[in-house]
Amino acid sequence: MLENSKFINQVSIDCVIFGFEENELKVLIPKINFSGDFYALPSGFIYQEEDIENAAKRILEERTGLKEIYMEQFKVFGKANRKRQEFMDELISKNYIDNIEEVKKNPGYAWFTNRFISIGYYALVNIKDVKPRLSAIDQSFQWYNIDQAPELIMDHPEVLKEALKALREDIDTKFNVFHLLPEKFTMREVQDAYETIFEKEFVRTNFQKKILSMDVLERLEKKFTGAKNKAPYLYRLKSE
Amino acid sequence: MLENSKFINQVSIDCVIFGFEENELKVLIPKINFSGDFYALPSGFIYQEEDIENAAKRILEERTGLKEIYMEQFKVFGKANRKRQEFMDELISKNYIDNIEEVKKNPGYAWFTNRFISIGYYALVNIKDVKPRLSAIDQSFQWYNIDQAPELIMDHPEVLKEALKALREDIDTKFNVFHLLPEKFTMREVQDAYETIFEKEFVRTNFQKKILSMDVLERLEKKFTGAKNKAPYLYRLKSE
Repeated sequence: MLENSKFINQVSIDCVIFGFEENELKVLIPKINFSGDFYALPSGFIYQEEDIENAAKRILEERTGLKEIYMEQFKVFGKANRKRQEFMDELISKNYIDNIEEVKKNPGYAWFTNRFISIGYYALVNIKDVKPRLSAIDQSFQWYNIDQAPELIMDHPEVLKEALKALREDIDTKFNVFHLLPEKFTMREVQDAYETIFEKEFVRTNFQKKILSMDVLERLEKKFTGAKNKAPYLYRLKSE
Repeated sequence: MLENSKFINQVSIDCVIFGFEENELKVLIPKINFSGDFYALPSGFIYQEEDIENAAKRILEERTGLKEIYMEQFKVFGKANRKRQEFMDELISKNYIDNIEEVKKNPGYAWFTNRFISIGYYALVNIKDVKPRLSAIDQSFQWYNIDQAPELIMDHPEVLKEALKALREDIDTKFNVFHLLPEKFTMREVQDAYETIFEKEFVRTNFQKKILSMDVLERLEKKFTGAKNKAPYLYRLKSE
């Protein structure tokens, strides 16, 4: 199982991967490859000789196949009672019927059920770019609408909730929303993404004015729609 | 020295304590009680049975005497090369002239010079409320103007810089600025604090409109200044 010395003890990384499709905000949730219907956020540990940013990138690449991915560290989860004990015991009871006690004697069990501090990252992807890969512990994974996610293990529901909160808080200062869209997008698509994320409507003219005043978009050609006069402009994020 | 088992290994907390006085943004910086003029942000470790929030509160109370303190977790510092090795070796060379090698054999030395992940918190205080206390490793401490802080050890200059960035980013969403002021304050005092933090001036009428539109302040009596007609109103943060 896990070798203590390779990873930093008692510290993990939990990732929330958001995507946007058909006017729905979605989240990528793996199902763990054990009996018992366990769903968990993409997670991992930090190698002793690895920057935490690189660990997060590695964990995200493992699931999405994407090397360059927009991510933000958003919160550390550090309650004293933050342990995998209950989850691990349930998992073991449903998977190792004959040798439960043996499994619990494994040094990996003690390591894994210790108290963990978890660093939360959220990532924003254009769903069409993702080349999903199963990690060693995934049975499958799926994009879920944000309000239709399956029940998650441990405190992962709280991690997901806090990621969504951070996504909203960051939206006007970090211009993160554009990373949910294709490379070229219309102003309508930006507004759709905002309206979905905030679950409310914005007045079109004010919205457009606000977005353009951020001065981070570059206006491109018109989008070909067949009706030349009404074709909307395409935009993309200015390169830095 | 340090007992491994009591604290979480390889994780520390670094705090940046901001105050505001005479239109200057200030930061509280302790000088370490060893020869060599070492300045370090208030820091500490997390007990195995302690929430990280409580660890941060404990570390902040230790320095300020304040039990209730406004704080925000702002960033995790987690480079693989984030170690105290150089600092410790310099400290030891200036303080343990006769028995350097003995000191290095102490198990605490290995623990302390390991790679550490540090969770950054910034705190906002009203300087007049602080009842400064020296911790076990402080020789003294002092409030410095933000741009006149002494040279800090390790990556603490970066921690300070990121804390200031977070303070600015949070200002309009978390209403944190009010925690730098006395319980009752004038709109002019709020504007002074904003102008100091952002190092720029705001137009008075627009500024006032913006602050009042946040809808978090309660208007109180006028401040007695001797000139009744021109006395400004006092405000305070609404209780939640």
